[in-house]
Amino acid sequence: MQGKAHTRASRAGKHTCGDSALRQTGRRTSRPGGRLAGVTLVVQKFGGTSVADADRIRAVADHIARTRRTGTSVIVVVSAMGKTTDGLIRLAEDVSRVRPGRELDMLLTAGERISMSLLCMALAELGVPAASFTGSQAGIITDTTHTKARILEVKGDRLRESLAQGVVPVVAGFQGVSSARDVTTLGRGGSDTTAVALAAALEADLCEIYTDVSGVFTADPRVVPTAHRIPRISFEEMLEIAATGGKVLALRSVEFARNHHVPLHVRSSFTWEPGTVVSEEDSSMEQPIVSSVTSDSTEAKVTITGVPDQPGIAASVFRGLADRAINVDVIVQNTSHHGTTDISFTVPRSDLEGSLEVAEQLVPRLGAVSVIADDDVATVSLVGAGMRTHPGVTATMFETLAVAGINIEMISTSPIRISCLVRAEHAERAVQVLHAAFELGG
Amino acid sequence: MQGKAHTRASRAGKHTCGDSALRQTGRRTSRPGGRLAGVTLVVQKFGGTSVADADRIRAVADHIARTRRTGTSVIVVVSAMGKTTDGLIRLAEDVSRVRPGRELDMLLTAGERISMSLLCMALAELGVPAASFTGSQAGIITDTTHTKARILEVKGDRLRESLAQGVVPVVAGFQGVSSARDVTTLGRGGSDTTAVALAAALEADLCEIYTDVSGVFTADPRVVPTAHRIPRISFEEMLEIAATGGKVLALRSVEFARNHHVPLHVRSSFTWEPGTVVSEEDSSMEQPIVSSVTSDSTEAKVTITGVPDQPGIAASVFRGLADRAINVDVIVQNTSHHGTTDISFTVPRSDLEGSLEVAEQLVPRLGAVSVIADDDVATVSLVGAGMRTHPGVTATMFETLAVAGINIEMISTSPIRISCLVRAEHAERAVQVLHAAFELGG
Repeated sequence: MQGKAHTRASRAGKHTCGDSALRQTGRRTSRPGGRLAGVTLVVQKFGGTSVADADRIRAVADHIARTRRTGTSVIVVVSAMGKTTDGLIRLAEDVSRVRPGRELDMLLTAGERISMSLLCMALAELGVPAASFTGSQAGIITDTTHTKARILEVKGDRLRESLAQGVVPVVAGFQGVSSARDVTTLGRGGSDTTAVALAAALEADLCEIYTDVSGVFTADPRVVPTAHRIPRISFEEMLEIAATGGKVLALRSVEFARNHHVPLHVRSSFTWEPGTVVSEEDSSMEQPIVSSVTSDSTEAKVTITGVPDQPGIAASVFRGLADRAINVDVIVQNTSHHGTTDISFTVPRSDLEGSLEVAEQLVPRLGAVSVIADDDVATVSLVGAGMRTHPGVTATMFETLAVAGINIEMISTSPIRISCLVRAEHAERAVQVLHAAFELGG
Repeated sequence: MQGKAHTRASRAGKHTCGDSALRQTGRRTSRPGGRLAGVTLVVQKFGGTSVADADRIRAVADHIARTRRTGTSVIVVVSAMGKTTDGLIRLAEDVSRVRPGRELDMLLTAGERISMSLLCMALAELGVPAASFTGSQAGIITDTTHTKARILEVKGDRLRESLAQGVVPVVAGFQGVSSARDVTTLGRGGSDTTAVALAAALEADLCEIYTDVSGVFTADPRVVPTAHRIPRISFEEMLEIAATGGKVLALRSVEFARNHHVPLHVRSSFTWEPGTVVSEEDSSMEQPIVSSVTSDSTEAKVTITGVPDQPGIAASVFRGLADRAINVDVIVQNTSHHGTTDISFTVPRSDLEGSLEVAEQLVPRLGAVSVIADDDVATVSLVGAGMRTHPGVTATMFETLAVAGINIEMISTSPIRISCLVRAEHAERAVQVLHAAFELGG
């Protein structure tokens, strides 16, 4: 029974079957609890808003029970209830100005402990046998980087035992145990990463991410009222959307899913409607040119002016930033004039101060002129797998922004993305005009 | 360093040294942080009121830091903050009518996780290196009886490592990990039991139980305003006090301390004054005849009338109760008249219904007449090691109650305790007149 339900002959077999299952899933999950054709094991992850109070927890338990009645085995991953994590952080701030990472992790992992045990109780009331597992009990082994640990290995033995006994494993998201036997947390988007990692390790057919929005949209519906849900999207597009300001899925969990070929289904735990399926690109399907318009106002721009145009200069700047664990996003270096150039890059605003220190220390050593900081900027991006074969997209984007009177300060591109740095005040309007220009409004 | 500080040549050596240390402790701890003469390792346990909010947690951290500055190594045990546990139980009741013990334990252990990590942060701010350990990490191995597990073994390897590195281990009270690798809780008084078990396993010289009262009193000060703190008391007396309604220490932790020869010091985390030292009886000290008057209104009386006076009858009653895990306290069987007798016993009120079911099923099988329940009773007890050599105590007790017009319904005695069952409405007055009659008012 276990062999049949939870293992597969090969990864190759999985992918074929998984994709075919998924295509049906896109249609068939429209009824809550409708049979997930071909899906024998699903990971269902519920975010903080999905388990925010007793009523929500009971609703989630109902949904798990329905899924299970269709014959599909379920592994559940939960986040902490609602604002629990924020509350715990405030408490820590009240207690002490010094908050070692090890202890912060111990504190924050209390949150999922509460939500997962309550969910098991709600399942028990419905007659569904369930057992909660901490990250440690689930065998989620991480490195020792407290507050943003990376998963090294997923053992999952107890989850397999639990499934074999017909007991639904309910696993704490966001947490693991380090190789030094200490409790760790996975940082932002950690629960999504837990869900994807478990789906990969236990060879689930599908990982469902339940949240408070009904999927991935062509633009933020609060900015663009005509934005609509994207029913299917490739991992690559989803990566670009997550990296350029789309908040539905954390970049890291999408990377993990892509690397481990775990199809995702992002959907609402309030309406239970079908959401957005994220999977391998299917070349038999026609690609829309542009899938989504995103914007990101959380970054700042740093420019080092008058840099001598010599080999190794850029390297020394970005090595200095890397040493401080500062993630650089867009980098632009203009063509040199008279032997000097300007280097501009964007960093998270929270890292602006550290970035300026690095840059200012380098100015005399590099023989550069000055450092200019600018935190009044935003990036606006177009993402779409179809861009690769439609070179006119860039031109249309620039023309559209020009007509709207929006100046472009920096540009960066990938085969399926174009990002423009604009004044922060222009970001919303840029998203609106681009959404209209590419006819994304349904 | 570790060998010197945390191990001893032999248990025999320990007791001699421990007792001598303790006698000094009784005097020397009057200054907060005053040197604990002869104490190289102390377990300090802080209850829920002692860590109820950020201010209290910082005050506890201060005290630990002061203790440590005297050269004494400290192992800390904490309960959940204030009413956290009650709040979690209410949450569980909101979510589900079915609350499996395994999940209830997972839920409740979130409480100590929060308090212990916050306390470590407060210690870090004071420059005291500290690390929190769950019951599982501390190696507290229990049986699999969820919600009231018993400790089978304390490994404590990580605590020894932590002490050796000069890091204060802060251990979650009330919790352990079962032989089935599941999280367990130890039930009522569980954190005291954790503290005593760690003191025994790590051969601490002393276990300090910090609470919101300043020690063990000759009677409940809310009932008897002249009641005063008992500076020293034997394990045996403390056991009787805990068993007859004294709420300062849970019976189970006192049993554990007595069996493992761990001296206790019960004291206030609000005043930090010396409290009550509980230790081996010291025959060189003069014993007061009576140490304490206690009362307990949490029990009910069950009487089975007209029971044939035959061997094995009592056994079948109490086996039936034991099978339901009902703890029987006082048992009285009157001398038989005309071949039948009455059996009366007291049980916790919460077990009254179950006890009546057991008794009523047995009535026809035993050929008894009827079962009478009475939950309007209280036991009033005198406890004192000096009673053994003062046979007049019983007479004085009965006379005092008679003069006060209080009828005695059942009597039970031990060498150092006399308990009388009275009407519940008479309990407070009984405590007051007995406290006066035995001149316990300082």
